[in-house]
Amino acid sequence: MYVSLSFDYGIIALAGASVALLYALYLVTYLRRQDPGNEKMMSIATAVRQGANAFLSREYRVIAPIAVIITILIYVFIDLPLKTGGVTAIGFAIGAGLSATAGYIGMAITVRTSSRTAQAARKGLGSALTLAFRGGGVMGMAVVGFGLFGLSVFYLAFEKTIVSTPAVVAGLGFGASLIAMFMRVSGGIYTKAADVGADLVGKTEAGIPEDDPRNPAVIADNVGDNVGDCAGMGADVYESFVVTAIAALILGALITSTPPTNLLSLISSNELLVFPLLLGVAGIIGSIIGGLYIRKSIKKNPMGALNVALIIAAAIALIIDFGFSHVLFGNNKLGYYLLGSCVVGLVVVVVIERVADYFTSYLYKPVRGIAESSQTGPATNFLAGFSTGLESTAPSAVVLVVAILVSYYLGYYGSGSNVLMGVYSTAIATMSMLSMTGVVMSIDSFGPITDNANGIVEMAGLESGVREVTDELDAVGNTTKATTKAFAIMSAALAAVSIFEAFQNEVNKQIVLHNLFSKYGLPANGTLTFVLTDPLVIVGLFIGSLLPFFFSSFLIQAVQRAAFKMVKEVRRQFKEIPGIMDGTGKPDYAKCVDISTQAAIRELAKPAALAIITPLAVGFILGPLALGGLLIGSVVSGVYLAFMMTNGGAAWDNAKKYIELGNLGGKGSEVHKAAVMGDTVGDPFKDTAGPAINSLIKVLNTISIVFVSAIVLYALIA
Amino acid sequence: MYVSLSFDYGIIALAGASVALLYALYLVTYLRRQDPGNEKMMSIATAVRQGANAFLSREYRVIAPIAVIITILIYVFIDLPLKTGGVTAIGFAIGAGLSATAGYIGMAITVRTSSRTAQAARKGLGSALTLAFRGGGVMGMAVVGFGLFGLSVFYLAFEKTIVSTPAVVAGLGFGASLIAMFMRVSGGIYTKAADVGADLVGKTEAGIPEDDPRNPAVIADNVGDNVGDCAGMGADVYESFVVTAIAALILGALITSTPPTNLLSLISSNELLVFPLLLGVAGIIGSIIGGLYIRKSIKKNPMGALNVALIIAAAIALIIDFGFSHVLFGNNKLGYYLLGSCVVGLVVVVVIERVADYFTSYLYKPVRGIAESSQTGPATNFLAGFSTGLESTAPSAVVLVVAILVSYYLGYYGSGSNVLMGVYSTAIATMSMLSMTGVVMSIDSFGPITDNANGIVEMAGLESGVREVTDELDAVGNTTKATTKAFAIMSAALAAVSIFEAFQNEVNKQIVLHNLFSKYGLPANGTLTFVLTDPLVIVGLFIGSLLPFFFSSFLIQAVQRAAFKMVKEVRRQFKEIPGIMDGTGKPDYAKCVDISTQAAIRELAKPAALAIITPLAVGFILGPLALGGLLIGSVVSGVYLAFMMTNGGAAWDNAKKYIELGNLGGKGSEVHKAAVMGDTVGDPFKDTAGPAINSLIKVLNTISIVFVSAIVLYALIA
Repeated sequence: MYVSLSFDYGIIALAGASVALLYALYLVTYLRRQDPGNEKMMSIATAVRQGANAFLSREYRVIAPIAVIITILIYVFIDLPLKTGGVTAIGFAIGAGLSATAGYIGMAITVRTSSRTAQAARKGLGSALTLAFRGGGVMGMAVVGFGLFGLSVFYLAFEKTIVSTPAVVAGLGFGASLIAMFMRVSGGIYTKAADVGADLVGKTEAGIPEDDPRNPAVIADNVGDNVGDCAGMGADVYESFVVTAIAALILGALITSTPPTNLLSLISSNELLVFPLLLGVAGIIGSIIGGLYIRKSIKKNPMGALNVALIIAAAIALIIDFGFSHVLFGNNKLGYYLLGSCVVGLVVVVVIERVADYFTSYLYKPVRGIAESSQTGPATNFLAGFSTGLESTAPSAVVLVVAILVSYYLGYYGSGSNVLMGVYSTAIATMSMLSMTGVVMSIDSFGPITDNANGIVEMAGLESGVREVTDELDAVGNTTKATTKAFAIMSAALAAVSIFEAFQNEVNKQIVLHNLFSKYGLPANGTLTFVLTDPLVIVGLFIGSLLPFFFSSFLIQAVQRAAFKMVKEVRRQFKEIPGIMDGTGKPDYAKCVDISTQAAIRELAKPAALAIITPLAVGFILGPLALGGLLIGSVVSGVYLAFMMTNGGAAWDNAKKYIELGNLGGKGSEVHKAAVMGDTVGDPFKDTAGPAINSLIKVLNTISIVFVSAIVLYALIA
Repeated sequence: MYVSLSFDYGIIALAGASVALLYALYLVTYLRRQDPGNEKMMSIATAVRQGANAFLSREYRVIAPIAVIITILIYVFIDLPLKTGGVTAIGFAIGAGLSATAGYIGMAITVRTSSRTAQAARKGLGSALTLAFRGGGVMGMAVVGFGLFGLSVFYLAFEKTIVSTPAVVAGLGFGASLIAMFMRVSGGIYTKAADVGADLVGKTEAGIPEDDPRNPAVIADNVGDNVGDCAGMGADVYESFVVTAIAALILGALITSTPPTNLLSLISSNELLVFPLLLGVAGIIGSIIGGLYIRKSIKKNPMGALNVALIIAAAIALIIDFGFSHVLFGNNKLGYYLLGSCVVGLVVVVVIERVADYFTSYLYKPVRGIAESSQTGPATNFLAGFSTGLESTAPSAVVLVVAILVSYYLGYYGSGSNVLMGVYSTAIATMSMLSMTGVVMSIDSFGPITDNANGIVEMAGLESGVREVTDELDAVGNTTKATTKAFAIMSAALAAVSIFEAFQNEVNKQIVLHNLFSKYGLPANGTLTFVLTDPLVIVGLFIGSLLPFFFSSFLIQAVQRAAFKMVKEVRRQFKEIPGIMDGTGKPDYAKCVDISTQAAIRELAKPAALAIITPLAVGFILGPLALGGLLIGSVVSGVYLAFMMTNGGAAWDNAKKYIELGNLGGKGSEVHKAAVMGDTVGDPFKDTAGPAINSLIKVLNTISIVFVSAIVLYALIA
């Protein structure tokens, strides 16, 4: 049934990946040519870079042996029995390696760009904006470049294996998501232990401003921004990109291996496999061109400029998508319907950004409501922020539900009522969404770069006008950080829906392969279906839905424990080091960096074990039905818990900023103190637990697909 | 197929209900004979009673027209087309009426018992304990009495209609759950608006103790305890009891109407319908006997005594269960297997109580951890309480999952692999759990009664030894309130699983009845199954899972808005009424009562509309598949959100109490202030949003079953 396309479009995907990587390289050389600032600024940047490097290399040393063991396990238990020649294990290793690389690059660039951005801020808003945006661009291009590179190389090398055994491609996704989860969790704990610890003593007790060099936790805090917001976010979005592409690849392969008769003329080859990869190429070109809009001549409204860049990128990507779909599908209506799904994906990017913006920007009612609630103290501030987070789940849910239904029915009707094509079409919408990663990440990384620049401006004691520039960019960064998280959560939810279909297909494939019909109580050639009336499916849903709640409890407690230690240490230094408050004594920064580093590594064990062991235990003990329930259950509750935490957290943060602008009593008032408390609570919500739920969902999905063959064979309860 | 039993055991159920109601009446006369205390105590109790009465009558005046309209709608759109002679509408009216009555009685008794308990506390712990317990007993017996009364009358009157059209019985459940939701929501908003408002200004700003008569919100606070904790909880547990019995009845009727061949000799009649009702009878007798253990001679460890009473009640109920099962099922193994499910239900009551106790009592690590986190201020206190709530979901989930699996497989294997009997068996386990309602409610109502008694002791300025007695009982009450909520949540989750099976059966019955196979894309005589790969089911799950999050945001915001008004009013009174702080000026209590009352009524609209309109809109627009997904989705996320909020809230409360015992600096310290903040945040979690999620889940389930016939016929998207 399957023949190769006369020209393999996988080559175009590889070329697109190379363009992204070369553009990233160009940006790096551009950035290195910029003025890194005076000696003091450079020395601060160096201290931060060394802290971040030390942490990352220590973390990689912990992760590497785990990754090696898992690679071997996959080879022995999956590749050998399936006779795939080690493709899954290789995929896992590539996925994990590229994920770690993307994270490292993200961090390496931001630590180098921050002092340059601080220096550029002395020249004006446009210069700083352009520099921060281009710094973020390195990360964005590295993420899509490595993502698409891994995917297309893997695709070109193992094309036939993928079509015959689609699950092998999941190894790549599992590698990416496992590393991303590690980095998200440990980076999230690191950054918030430092941030919360620094704020609790510095701002609340000692009354010194943020990033004040007298605060012993200030370097740890800045290192945290890099390892959490940059390395963590980079690995996270890289993972989203890869996992979504894989969902589309698996579904495409499933349809290609037994194409529906009415589409036989069309799906004669691997069109459905290359299309998602080509969407990535379109997104890269769109992102590069859109990014050019950000120039030094911009004088005001940085948020507006970033939005224009995003819309240009989306429009160009859509035009190129149209070209690719025409080449692959000609004038067949399927092509146009799938193009409709591309539009759905791009619209989702814009709409979900508006939703996140509404709930997290101080221009609107929700954040102002939180600020007003601070007038009656921290308790009402907590309740207001929490309920704002809860409320934000509803419009996000509407976007999600509409996107699923519209994209599904586009594929379904476009293919003459083929169910798999419906789900494939949802995967295409998600891929179209994620093709915007390049520009979205540029906009996002912006946040931590300016945050760090801000820190350097403060610590190096630069002139006051500079701080105003970096402050304005930092506020914009707060919003873009929130909207990117919404982007990542939404794509995770959509990808999970597609992956579940692939999972169900793999389960039944294995049942047929090993003739397990009687084990699963099926008639000959019957299909195992995941019905809501089956107690195993229900139990799976309950277990899956539990995981984001339980997982979050670990993370919040970890931050708390670490922050508690940090607070004690900072208090001790304030008490024991003479002259620390008048600037004559030097705080022991290294000790605080050490506390964060140790905590981040140690606290990784429990949540990581939960994410890896639960799906395997449920699969091997309760069987594939319960595991399927678990996968859906985890998305269904996880997506809202994640939205609640990331939107709520950003809303608290900006409520504080709103008061700091002089509203409701302004900085230093009781109202402000209450708002600082809310911000402290929101920190682990928005930067540790919330975004980590994303990675959790994806790890659960990819590990299940990788191990599906073994699970179906060895499940105790069928 | 169906013949009546030679002797109708429904009579025994009716007799059991009468016993419960007569015992409640006996307790009332006993309580009225007790000394109501001195004039000052009586005048306070009267003020509270009047406030509570005023609120409840106002609420009922709002609810009554809504109930009438819904009754008419049900009659026109359900009973007329189904030709049931108005059974569903009658059921709705009975369910709603009895729910309102149970709530009223619960409140009427507690307001009368509190001053008597305060007076009894002067004689010692045993006297106060016995009185509070018996006061709670009136509520417990009224709840099961009315519940079983409605069910057995309905059963005896409409036996044949129930077997032919099981969905009619859902009217009774919908009536019960709608009123319960109204009372839970408005009672919850009332009580916490008053409580939070009183605490924020009284404790935190003015530094006066709880229940201090100088606080203008103190009467509103005490009224709130009655309308929230008593009337709300009474209606809630009444609803759980009725809805669970209905799930068992519907499943029993489904099996009875087409009994499996291997059980034909056994299920020749209505055994499966009367069995759940008889379990209720066994529970009533067990509860009465177990309750006798609580005597005036008890000198210490009230919690231990209450636990013994519970275990006696469970043991006696189980013995009687055995008798009933033997009479109905003889020596058939099905009887023994179902008895096994009864044991599962009783074990769940005990285990879930232990879990809730562990996470909410200051004897254990979690609460002490929260107390210690208060050392670094409100923010870390808040994070610790929140993560404790999140953590508590895991053991609760294990209990839930094990209970579902064990009870299901007991019924499944006991009946020779009948799927419906598996689900019926889960319903039996739930019913066995809820048969403990009499004693559980006695133990629970205890809490608000002693809370109120405490208030009266404080306001009437009784001697200090008395306060110690009521304080000790109050602390026990805090724990029992938390364990009862866990009991209610767990039963709601289990009942929802059973109801879903009934829902799915009704959907397919309607498809057959109206020959809608082609509308739903089914082959002739095909079955509509709720598969996780169907996008409508997935979308339904996402919408369902959203509801508890969104619903909670309304409730927390409502409390916040109302508390904000209360704070402003209390501050105003402190400023404007001369001599209020030295006791020479009298605060304007009525104004605060009025703020709570108005807020509670007004804020009811949004959450109520969400709970009623969403399932109908999803059902009629997206069809039964999406609605089925919605039902499961709402339980799957709702159960954990509810556990998180109720356990977290109680943990914050007891962390504060732990500090008040003199730990970590004790009362008045900075640590204590932080803990008071946490308690304030926990208040709407544990007493407004958390318990209301229960009612939400049950309203969604019952409304869907009531309207299933119309939805299947008129759904736009099939």
